[in-house]
Amino acid sequence: MSTGDNSFESSDTGRSGAPLKYAQSVTFEDPVELDRGGTLPEVTVVCETYGKLNAAGDNAVWICHALSGDSHVAAHDDTDDPGWWDIAVGPGKAIDTDKYFVICPNILGGCRGTTGPNSINPKTGRPYGQDFPTITVNDMVDVQLRLLDHLGIDKLLAVIGGSLGGQQALCWAVRYPDRVRGIIPIATSARLSSQGMAFNVVGRNAIRRDPDFHDGQYYDHPAGPRVGLALARMIGHITYLSKESMHEKFSATRTQPRHLETEFERQFSVGSYLGFKGAEFVERFDANSYVTLSMAMDLFDLGAAVDDLVDLFKDNPCRWLVISFTSDWLFPPKESRDIVEALVRTDRPVSYCNVVTDCGHDAFLLPVDLDSYGQMTESFLATLAGDTARRESGGDRAAGGLRPNIFHPANPQRLDYDVILDLIAPGASVLDLACGNGDLLVELAERGHNRTLGIEIHQADVIMCVDKGLDVVQGDLNDGLVTFCDKQFDCIVLSRALMEIKDVKGVLEGMLRVGRKCIVSFPNFGYYKLRDMLSSEGKAPEAGVLHYKWYNTPNIRVLTIKDFEEFCAELGAAIHHSLALDTEKSAVVSGDVNLNADLAIYVISR
Amino acid sequence: MSTGDNSFESSDTGRSGAPLKYAQSVTFEDPVELDRGGTLPEVTVVCETYGKLNAAGDNAVWICHALSGDSHVAAHDDTDDPGWWDIAVGPGKAIDTDKYFVICPNILGGCRGTTGPNSINPKTGRPYGQDFPTITVNDMVDVQLRLLDHLGIDKLLAVIGGSLGGQQALCWAVRYPDRVRGIIPIATSARLSSQGMAFNVVGRNAIRRDPDFHDGQYYDHPAGPRVGLALARMIGHITYLSKESMHEKFSATRTQPRHLETEFERQFSVGSYLGFKGAEFVERFDANSYVTLSMAMDLFDLGAAVDDLVDLFKDNPCRWLVISFTSDWLFPPKESRDIVEALVRTDRPVSYCNVVTDCGHDAFLLPVDLDSYGQMTESFLATLAGDTARRESGGDRAAGGLRPNIFHPANPQRLDYDVILDLIAPGASVLDLACGNGDLLVELAERGHNRTLGIEIHQADVIMCVDKGLDVVQGDLNDGLVTFCDKQFDCIVLSRALMEIKDVKGVLEGMLRVGRKCIVSFPNFGYYKLRDMLSSEGKAPEAGVLHYKWYNTPNIRVLTIKDFEEFCAELGAAIHHSLALDTEKSAVVSGDVNLNADLAIYVISR
Repeated sequence: MSTGDNSFESSDTGRSGAPLKYAQSVTFEDPVELDRGGTLPEVTVVCETYGKLNAAGDNAVWICHALSGDSHVAAHDDTDDPGWWDIAVGPGKAIDTDKYFVICPNILGGCRGTTGPNSINPKTGRPYGQDFPTITVNDMVDVQLRLLDHLGIDKLLAVIGGSLGGQQALCWAVRYPDRVRGIIPIATSARLSSQGMAFNVVGRNAIRRDPDFHDGQYYDHPAGPRVGLALARMIGHITYLSKESMHEKFSATRTQPRHLETEFERQFSVGSYLGFKGAEFVERFDANSYVTLSMAMDLFDLGAAVDDLVDLFKDNPCRWLVISFTSDWLFPPKESRDIVEALVRTDRPVSYCNVVTDCGHDAFLLPVDLDSYGQMTESFLATLAGDTARRESGGDRAAGGLRPNIFHPANPQRLDYDVILDLIAPGASVLDLACGNGDLLVELAERGHNRTLGIEIHQADVIMCVDKGLDVVQGDLNDGLVTFCDKQFDCIVLSRALMEIKDVKGVLEGMLRVGRKCIVSFPNFGYYKLRDMLSSEGKAPEAGVLHYKWYNTPNIRVLTIKDFEEFCAELGAAIHHSLALDTEKSAVVSGDVNLNADLAIYVISR
Repeated sequence: MSTGDNSFESSDTGRSGAPLKYAQSVTFEDPVELDRGGTLPEVTVVCETYGKLNAAGDNAVWICHALSGDSHVAAHDDTDDPGWWDIAVGPGKAIDTDKYFVICPNILGGCRGTTGPNSINPKTGRPYGQDFPTITVNDMVDVQLRLLDHLGIDKLLAVIGGSLGGQQALCWAVRYPDRVRGIIPIATSARLSSQGMAFNVVGRNAIRRDPDFHDGQYYDHPAGPRVGLALARMIGHITYLSKESMHEKFSATRTQPRHLETEFERQFSVGSYLGFKGAEFVERFDANSYVTLSMAMDLFDLGAAVDDLVDLFKDNPCRWLVISFTSDWLFPPKESRDIVEALVRTDRPVSYCNVVTDCGHDAFLLPVDLDSYGQMTESFLATLAGDTARRESGGDRAAGGLRPNIFHPANPQRLDYDVILDLIAPGASVLDLACGNGDLLVELAERGHNRTLGIEIHQADVIMCVDKGLDVVQGDLNDGLVTFCDKQFDCIVLSRALMEIKDVKGVLEGMLRVGRKCIVSFPNFGYYKLRDMLSSEGKAPEAGVLHYKWYNTPNIRVLTIKDFEEFCAELGAAIHHSLALDTEKSAVVSGDVNLNADLAIYVISR
C-alpha cells in the first residue's frame, strides 16, 4: 500500500550528499520480507523520471544505477546538477527522453533517499546503522517492483544497468520476466568473481575496522568512518579503471602530485588523485550503504556454471542486449559471455558485443565508447519499440560496411545469397556464421524466419546488425560452436568464410553437431583459371583473379571442390545437395564442376 | 669499515618474526649517504649463505628477496624452518647449492635483521620508526655492495630476484655492472605501473591512517597498526594472485568461510582467507618496513620509455635472462618486454621467456611452473659458469623438440641448413627468426659467430634454446621487428617460416630494414608435383606431397618462386643470390626452377 495514488512526495535525499531537486519519493507502509530473512517495516523509494509515459504505457525504460550512483541519472534542465549518465540519457540521446519515459530509482540500501542504513528505523526512531538487515539484489528489485506498480506501468520496454545495475537488470529478467520486454545488462556478471569479491572484502574491512565506525552507529558521533570509507573507495576506483587508462592518466606526471586537497598520501600523481577521490566520496556517500551494497553485490549469485543460467533463462520471454568491455577486469567479458552462452543455448533472442576499449569497467559511464554501446542501446530500444522507420533512415549512420569478399572486393553484391536462400526451408531457424553486417539475416527476416542468429567477430558489423534489429553475438568461430546444443538450428550457414578459418575441422564438426542442415559456400581453387595461374603462369592461384595477393589475402585455407567432398567423407557428413557457380557469368555450372566453377555451395549434415 | 674481517656475528632478526637460526650479521660503521638525501650513521646487514665459494671465487649467486621476504631463502638442513624459495634453491635444485655459493641478504629497510625502521637509531637510542629516511632500491643495492666487498667476492656469477627483488637485480646491472656477470630479473619492471603504485598507495594510507600507527612510533605502544598493515597485506595478496588462480582457490567454496582464526570479515571463503593472511602477516612483519619498502618500489624508476633503458643498457657487460608470467598483472609481461627490447636494441646478450601460467605474480614462488623458470635459471647459470658438460648431458631433458617442418614432418633433418650456413659470412651477427629449438644457432655458435639471437614463439623451444646456451627472445613475428635498429644485424634468417606468417609484408619490410642481408627460404608451390596436384588431380597443392591437409596445415601463405621475386621487386629489395633445391633428391636445381624446385633460398637486401 502506498502513501498516494501514482503521486510522489518531494524528497530530501537522506543524510549524504546534496538534495536532489527533481527526486520524487513514495513510501510503502506494508512491510518488506527480505530475501535472507528479516523484515523492513516500511520502505521509501526515491526516483527521478524523464520524458512522458505514452498512452499505451509501453515506452518506459528503467535504469538501474551502480553501487555509488543515485536516481539523478541525468540533468532535468539547464539549471539542474549534472547526472551520472548525462551522455546517454536525454532528448535525442541514446536513451531518448523524447521517445521514452525514463525512470531511475535510488536503490534499496542506498543513501540518497530510498530506505537504507541511514534511514530512520521506525522501531527505534534512530537511523538503522548496522541494524539495517542484509539485503540482496532480489530485495532491491522487489522494492522497485512496488514502485513500478505504483506508477501503474504494466510492462517496461527495457531495464538497463551497468555493474551492480546490471545485476539488477539480470534480476528483473529472472524474477519478473513478464514485466519487461528487453534486458540490457552492461559490464556485469551472473556472479562476481572471487577477485572482485576480494576487493569488496578489503573495502568492508577498512570501513568496519575504522575506530570511528562505532558498529555502524556513527550517526550520533561527530565523525563517521571517513578513513575506512575513503580507503574502500580508493580500492574501488582502481578496479573501475584499467591498467591502460591509469597509465594514460598518471604515468607522464608520475612523481608530480596534483594540486588536490586530501588528508591522504600525496607523493605521486596517482596517490594525490586517489586520496582526493576517496575524500570526495566520503562527503557524498554513507559508509553503511557501502557495506550494505557491496555485500549485496557479493551475494548476488545466479549460479556458478552456465548450466545454472540455462535453467534460469530457458523460458525467459525477454529480448536481450548484453554488452561488455574488453579492458574491464572487474566484470571481465568472459562473465558476460557466460550469460550470453546460456541465452544462446536456450534459444533466447540475444545480441552481444564486447566493446574494444582501454577504459576498463567505467567505460559505460564515459563518452569515449558511446558510439558503440550507446548506439547499440539506441538501436535495441528502437527494435523493442518496433521503430523500424528510425532503422531505415538511420542505418547508414552505422560504421563499417561489407567486408570485402573474396570474389568481388569492390562489389558488395553477394550473388550466392539467392541460391543459399532458396536452400533454406520456409520458417527454418537459421544460424549465420560470420554474418558480416547481416545482409542474409535481413533477407531471412523479410521472408518470415523469426528465429535467426548471427555470429560475427568484427565490432562494426555487430553494431550494424543490432542497428538492423537482428540478433547477433560477437564471437570468433575458431573458438568453436561449443556454446550451442545438438541440432539446435534447422540450418547453419557458413557463406564464404571457410577459407578464413584456422580451425576448419573444429568449426565443421561443430556445425554438423548443431545444425540439422549445414550450408557451406566457398571459392573453388580447382577453377580452371586458378589452375592455369599455377600451371601456366607459375603463380599462386590466390593472386590476380581473386584480387588479393598471396601475402595479404585474408584467406588462409586453399581448397577445391574435390578436397571438400573428400573432407566431408572423412567427417562422415552426408552431402544432400551441391551447387557449382560461375559467378562471373552468374551461371550454374554442370559437368566438371571442379574445373569450371569458381564457387561451390554444399548442403551437408550428419 | 666493517666490524670484522669476512666474519659475521650471529644475528637476532629484529623485532618481527622468529629468529633466523643461520642468519649472519655484519655491521658497517661508516655512514651511508642515501640516494634521496639523508644519512644512516651505520648499517647492519643480515644474510644467509648456502654452499661454498670456490677457489676462483666465481661461483657466487646473489638472491634478492621481494617486499615481504627475508634472508631465509631456503632451509639449511632438515631441522631448519622452510625458506621462501626452497623449491628453487638447494642441492641439485635449479640454483644448485652443490655448485654455487648462494648469498641472500635481508634488504635495507626490512625488518628481519638488516637495518630498517625497527632498528635502533644510534642517535636516539630508540627505534627509527618513521624517522627512518626514505630509501630507494639504489640504497638497498649500495648496502648489498658493502656486504659483497666484505665477503671478498670480486664478481658475482649472477644476481637473481623476482618483483622488488627483480628491481634490485636491474639496479645491480645498472649500478655495478662490473661486479656481476649475469642478471636474472623475474616478474619485474623498470618502473612500476600506475596501477601497481595505486595499490601501494592505498596500503600505505591504510597503515599510516591507522590510529595505532602513532606517526610510526608505535613500538612503545601495546599495539601497532595491526589493522592497517593487515589491510595493506590483503590488497597486496590480491595483486599477487591472478583472477584465474583466485577462481580456482575460492569459487567452488564461495560462501563457505574457511575455519581460520581472523578478526576480519569471514563471510566468504575468499574473505576468511584474506583476513587470515592479513592477520598472519602482522605477526611477522613491521608496518614501517612495509611503508618504507613499498615506497622504494614505487620510487624505483629506470625511465618511462624504452629509449631511457637503451641509454642505461648500451654499454652493459652483463648477460641477461628475463622471465615474466602471462597472468602476472602486477608486473605484466609488457614491462619485461620493454627491458628486453632495450637490451636487444643495444645488442646485449639476452634471453626472454613469458611463461604461460595462471598463477599470476606469485608464479615464481610456486612449484607449478618450476619446470620452465627453474630450468631456464639452471641452464642460464650453467652457461654463465661455462658448464657445457651439463648442457650436453642435460639437453634431452628439455621438453619440445623440432616442430614439424613443411617437407619432412617426421624427419628433423633440415637439409637446407648447410646451404644457409654457407651463405652467412664468417663472424657475421645473425638474427634467426622463428629459430625453433636453435639448431641453426648452435651450428653458428660452433662456427664462431658470437653475436646471434633467436626469436621464437613457442615456450618449449625457447626453453631448449636457453638450455643450449643460446640467446633467444620469445616473440611473435607478426608483431614485427620494431624492436630492432636499422641494419642491426649482418644477416637475418627466415627459414621455412614465411608461410606461417600472417603479416608477411610487415615482417619482410622489417627484415630489410634491420638486416644488412636477409636469407629467406620457403617451399615453392610452383613445384611441378604441386602444380600437377591442382591441375591434374584437382586438389589443393598443400595436401599429399606436403603431408598436411588443406584444413590443418600451419601454412597459411601459398607462394611460388615467381611470386616471391615479384614481391621483392614490389618491396624494392635487391636479390643477391638465389638457390633452388629439390630436397627429395638433395640436389640443387637449375633451369626452370619455379617448376623443378620444391624449396627456394633467397638472399635479399635493401
